[in-house]
Amino acid sequence: MAFSEFRPLNEKSLVEYIKATSSLSSKIGDKYDDLKIKEVGDGNLNFVYIIVGASGSFVIKQALPYIRCIGESWPMTKERAYFEAIALKEHGGLCPQHVPEVYHFDRTMSLIGMRYIEPPHIILRKGLIAGIEYPFLAEHMSEYMAKTLFCTSLLYRSTTEHKRAVAQFCGNVELCRLTEQVVFSDPYKVSEHNRWTSPYLDHDALAVQEDDILKLEVAELKSKFCERAQALIHGDLHTGSIMVTRDSTQVIDPEFAFYGPMGFDIGAFIGNLILSFFAQEGHADQGNDRKIYKEWILKTIEDTWNLFHQKFTALWDQHKDGSGEAYLPAIYNNPELQKLIQEKYMKELFHDTLGFGAAKMIRRIVGIAHVEDFESIREASIRADCERQALELAKTLLKKRREFLSISEVISAITHVQS
Amino acid sequence: MAFSEFRPLNEKSLVEYIKATSSLSSKIGDKYDDLKIKEVGDGNLNFVYIIVGASGSFVIKQALPYIRCIGESWPMTKERAYFEAIALKEHGGLCPQHVPEVYHFDRTMSLIGMRYIEPPHIILRKGLIAGIEYPFLAEHMSEYMAKTLFCTSLLYRSTTEHKRAVAQFCGNVELCRLTEQVVFSDPYKVSEHNRWTSPYLDHDALAVQEDDILKLEVAELKSKFCERAQALIHGDLHTGSIMVTRDSTQVIDPEFAFYGPMGFDIGAFIGNLILSFFAQEGHADQGNDRKIYKEWILKTIEDTWNLFHQKFTALWDQHKDGSGEAYLPAIYNNPELQKLIQEKYMKELFHDTLGFGAAKMIRRIVGIAHVEDFESIREASIRADCERQALELAKTLLKKRREFLSISEVISAITHVQS
Ligand SMILES: Nc1ncnc2c1ncn2[C@@H]1O[C@H](COP(=O)(O)OP(=O)(O)O)[C@@H](O)[C@H]1O
Ligand SMILES: Nc1ncnc2c1ncn2[C@@H]1O[C@H](COP(=O)(O)OP(=O)(O)O)[C@@H](O)[C@H]1O
Ligand SMILES: [Mg+2]
Ligand SMILES: [Mg+2]
Ligand SMILES: [Mg+2]
Ligand SMILES: [Mg+2]
Ligand SMILES: [Mg+2]
Repeated sequence: MAFSEFRPLNEKSLVEYIKATSSLSSKIGDKYDDLKIKEVGDGNLNFVYIIVGASGSFVIKQALPYIRCIGESWPMTKERAYFEAIALKEHGGLCPQHVPEVYHFDRTMSLIGMRYIEPPHIILRKGLIAGIEYPFLAEHMSEYMAKTLFCTSLLYRSTTEHKRAVAQFCGNVELCRLTEQVVFSDPYKVSEHNRWTSPYLDHDALAVQEDDILKLEVAELKSKFCERAQALIHGDLHTGSIMVTRDSTQVIDPEFAFYGPMGFDIGAFIGNLILSFFAQEGHADQGNDRKIYKEWILKTIEDTWNLFHQKFTALWDQHKDGSGEAYLPAIYNNPELQKLIQEKYMKELFHDTLGFGAAKMIRRIVGIAHVEDFESIREASIRADCERQALELAKTLLKKRREFLSISEVISAITHVQS
Repeated sequence: MAFSEFRPLNEKSLVEYIKATSSLSSKIGDKYDDLKIKEVGDGNLNFVYIIVGASGSFVIKQALPYIRCIGESWPMTKERAYFEAIALKEHGGLCPQHVPEVYHFDRTMSLIGMRYIEPPHIILRKGLIAGIEYPFLAEHMSEYMAKTLFCTSLLYRSTTEHKRAVAQFCGNVELCRLTEQVVFSDPYKVSEHNRWTSPYLDHDALAVQEDDILKLEVAELKSKFCERAQALIHGDLHTGSIMVTRDSTQVIDPEFAFYGPMGFDIGAFIGNLILSFFAQEGHADQGNDRKIYKEWILKTIEDTWNLFHQKFTALWDQHKDGSGEAYLPAIYNNPELQKLIQEKYMKELFHDTLGFGAAKMIRRIVGIAHVEDFESIREASIRADCERQALELAKTLLKKRREFLSISEVISAITHVQS
């Protein structure tokens, strides 16, 4: 067989690969004359090819044994493609409306064939920078998170299913370690990887490294990340892992998936929306002061949590007599108790969400990987002002998260920092 | 090979097995004439044989595919022997003074050959019932728990080592499920397995099943038990899993081992000492009112936690620049911060210990498996009085554990209930 060993593909060898793979060749009716192949990976970790033929299309994603944007000097297991594939299948089975279908997976080649999420879909982050409103975003993302998180937790699964799946995803340890380093460690210490808008934020970056209370809190979150197998989380659910049109929301790129704390996913999404909010000043111009758009972002944050809460607890009510083993119906059999349990659970999840969301914000401002929302603000002093506001809010959220009783209090805190 | 398939051994076939197994036959100098074999399993889960020859001895423990004390009607994987063997080796490597050496393990036969813990060693629970003081018990048990728990946690291990080990022990799910059922579920619902000293405790048992706050708290502990992979815990560390003489303390029977919350082990030990304390009234007689002995038990409880705290944090200080990945030295590099972190960690661990300890006490009074400390009190009304005091204390500990700031406050609560 031509591809019995791993090898990195290019636009040419890809055609040979497709010809040899019926689940892919059939998608394009086995016609290669008008085949269009384009590499579109945004240069982050992996290589992504769009393949469009006369009668069909698909996307090929291949992992190479290093981090693409850094190069071979930072090795990273290509087995991540395996975990991405099984997470796509698992989450796709639970929420097919918002996850691309996997057509093909080749573990040897670390290669996934999946549905091409066609234009006019764009990466959500780019839409947020352009100031485009997505009226169904909160609805769709809360649906995706509620279904994938609830249904992979012990609220829905038996201990037996849970432990089997936890064991399997323990194999994705290299990607977990990467998160541990870039989210929970590097921003809080001197690291060659860290960067920030210098000199403007020099003082702020140093302050993060010298803030004992912040470090104490981030340690608690890190230990939850490392030890708590609550649900199969996406693991990298920022606004660059979501493709959108006005009516459609598609979640891609779960290569960091493992059994971890639910708040890490919800926090990633909400935290990145907050970053987008604070970046808006930098994208305002004479034609658009972004004031209305910022209101929409705030509303989307608020709706996301409230709808998530609603959908998640509705799933819980619906399945409370099912096979989930966390709360046996024979024990938690009365409505008042059921209500108490849910309130306690959702309160802890809310505080986890704020904590993890804040940690994800901080690392995007003073850590290795920044976000285009800020990076695309040309004027450094304006960018720094935006980033500083986001950083201040994140520090407050991380340190005082337990004092927030509702998402509307978070919205107030956001608008307060900004004024 | 004669033993290429699983089969339950008996005192006769055991000799054939030993003859065919050099790691065992060599222990007794391959001499079978004066061999003494005795089954000593206390009828709980497994079969345990003591083998004593002219020039040596050992113990054989075999797991059958059901729970011995219940019978074939309650099937239970015999793979538990595998997890017991690897836990014995892991914990034995970390704390050889307090764990019997494994001479031989046969996965097919679910059979462990290990050091014979010779007389005058007896099971600690029996010593406690007899009113015997063990002056080094707190010292030894705190040493065992500090070493085994610290060294299998992320305070000592890398994420890579941790996740590999977590995955391996996810396989011990059947035993985890048994704990979930008998500790965290059955006592809080109507179950054919539950029993208590009736009619005396009828009201008390019912009250447990109707106490919403208690159920709320036990749910939190259960989710920690199911989700939090903090360290390789023994999983069944009651006073029946410890063999003692005045100067020696040996921990056996870790077949429930898996990566779970540390407090489950510390709580099991301390909770069982508290049960023993409340049982003493029932063992008092004209010759011995057990007053002094009860003081010794209280002191042992207090010393256990305080010494554990001391040894655990000493290990932490000693290894703070090691390969443990929870708190990187580059971040947690100053003494005040190091102190804050340890205080936070130990406080949570203390409250976990009280919660799990209380849950273990409750299940021994109103659940399926009772303890000999109470069972051996002949007079039911006296037994019920002892049990009721223990139950009251346990409920307080479980519900108000976060209000206890030190072990001495727990001791006060114990003496308060009793008066
Ligand atoms: N199924 C898909 N359909 C269309 N475009 C895709 C698809 N998957 C990825 N892409 C494009 O490729 C880019 C990189 O994909 P991603 O999965 O995020 O890779 P990486 O892991 O390298 O970040 C995305 O930002 C998106 O533009
Ligand atoms: N290594 C040993 N040396 C001496 N006696 C032992 C040893 N292991 C077990 N025993 C005896 O056998 C009994 C049952 O052993 P245990 O490991 O607790 O089995 P089970 O899992 O059935 O509870 C113990 O209470 C103890 O009396
Ligand atoms: Mg991210
Ligand atoms: Mg991506
Ligand atoms: Mg990716
Ligand atoms: Mg035992
Ligand atoms: Mg046992």
